[in-house]
Amino acid sequence: MRRAWIGHRGMAHEAAVVGDAFQIQSGGRTVELGRDEVRLLPPPPPSKILAVGWNFPKHLEEMVDRLPERAVTEAPKEPIIFFKPPSCLITDGEPIVFPKDATRVEYEGELVVMVGTRARRISPEEARGIVRGWTCGNDVTEREMQGADKQWWRAKGYDTFGPVGGIYETDMPDADALIETRVNGELRQQGRVKDMLFDPFEVLSYISQALTLEPGDLVMLGTPPGVGALAVGDVVEVAVEGVGTLSNEVVEETD
Amino acid sequence: MRRAWIGHRGMAHEAAVVGDAFQIQSGGRTVELGRDEVRLLPPPPPSKILAVGWNFPKHLEEMVDRLPERAVTEAPKEPIIFFKPPSCLITDGEPIVFPKDATRVEYEGELVVMVGTRARRISPEEARGIVRGWTCGNDVTEREMQGADKQWWRAKGYDTFGPVGGIYETDMPDADALIETRVNGELRQQGRVKDMLFDPFEVLSYISQALTLEPGDLVMLGTPPGVGALAVGDVVEVAVEGVGTLSNEVVEETD
Repeated sequence: MRRAWIGHRGMAHEAAVVGDAFQIQSGGRTVELGRDEVRLLPPPPPSKILAVGWNFPKHLEEMVDRLPERAVTEAPKEPIIFFKPPSCLITDGEPIVFPKDATRVEYEGELVVMVGTRARRISPEEARGIVRGWTCGNDVTEREMQGADKQWWRAKGYDTFGPVGGIYETDMPDADALIETRVNGELRQQGRVKDMLFDPFEVLSYISQALTLEPGDLVMLGTPPGVGALAVGDVVEVAVEGVGTLSNEVVEETD
Repeated sequence: MRRAWIGHRGMAHEAAVVGDAFQIQSGGRTVELGRDEVRLLPPPPPSKILAVGWNFPKHLEEMVDRLPERAVTEAPKEPIIFFKPPSCLITDGEPIVFPKDATRVEYEGELVVMVGTRARRISPEEARGIVRGWTCGNDVTEREMQGADKQWWRAKGYDTFGPVGGIYETDMPDADALIETRVNGELRQQGRVKDMLFDPFEVLSYISQALTLEPGDLVMLGTPPGVGALAVGDVVEVAVEGVGTLSNEVVEETD
């Protein structure tokens, strides 16, 4: 089932997505809205956003010479987890702002899993039961700061560095489903859900050994090979087969 | 002015603290409650918790040989920032749970600043205008995982690793105010507000260059020298002169 968070006449709704239409409940009946009548909204502010680093072996290979952590030449034994702040969330159609103090801003197209149920110390099998849905995400990264800073708080956390959404799917994508990133229509990244070193349920289980997962929490599941730089004016699109697409233009910071 | 978040008869309130009494507004009048009539609550869930690493030169010295990042032998040129997740927040009187998979859990007593106003790209001078208050915090850390993991998400993020509160003070503590940590009554850490490499307003300004600060956000301002291990049964107390105290017992994880 496809669903989306939308704004309509100044109110926020969670809508069912049927074909091109958005269905909301209003006054006891179902109202059907067209794409031009709604504004896609980011997911409601999560209590936390977690992300997995180097979860695709071929992406790991391409990063070995690009970051100071040269020691990471073999697959990690446990998922590499980090936070992105809720303040960086945007959704489909909203601009990624290229920070005026940034040097190299890169896309990282990803599958994102949304938590639906509070959970702590669950097994991978139990993790299947806490998922609310699946959506597209872009773990936008300032690559120079990722290398220079000890922790990735701003490299991964600048305002607008967290495009997620806009439509989510309650069914998990197939193991063969492609995760693809295009820049100005040109294919740059490609991987399949089954290529992940740690599958989504292993990741959720692992995180929950330390942190209570809360409804609305988002976990970005790692990026396939092919990461690269974005420039002002680029349009970057993340597509996950069976889930949806997420498109954002890169704009200059003005103030 | 001293204030606190409290629970009373199943309701959450923000109270004025006058001497030993807690004053809340109810039905248009001021109701005064004793300490035994209220339960201290953690701050309302913030959208994010940030913390500063190695913000006291003498703490930097004691850590040089204890973490793999041996390169950090001189003072950082910019604040070292990282996230703690809102799921780790507890308050005065609540237990710190020693995780069953943890090896070495350490205290880090700190001054914490609470944001009152949404802000982005502000100067240190402007940062003075966005503060809601000041309180005590303990940046509890699993030291082995901090060294072993690339990012500090769980080393700093385990459930209950974020004691903050319980009373907050709207006036900034003096430059000479002591930040002290005691374990079972014995003094372990001591530093003064003025010893910080980056003062609270420089830290807020720096963070805001990348991330929008939101009302309720908490920033933990770094720990003085003297960090050390905690054991089950220990009581750890953080005191900031002119601000308050924060006391937590370490308990075993049971499930």
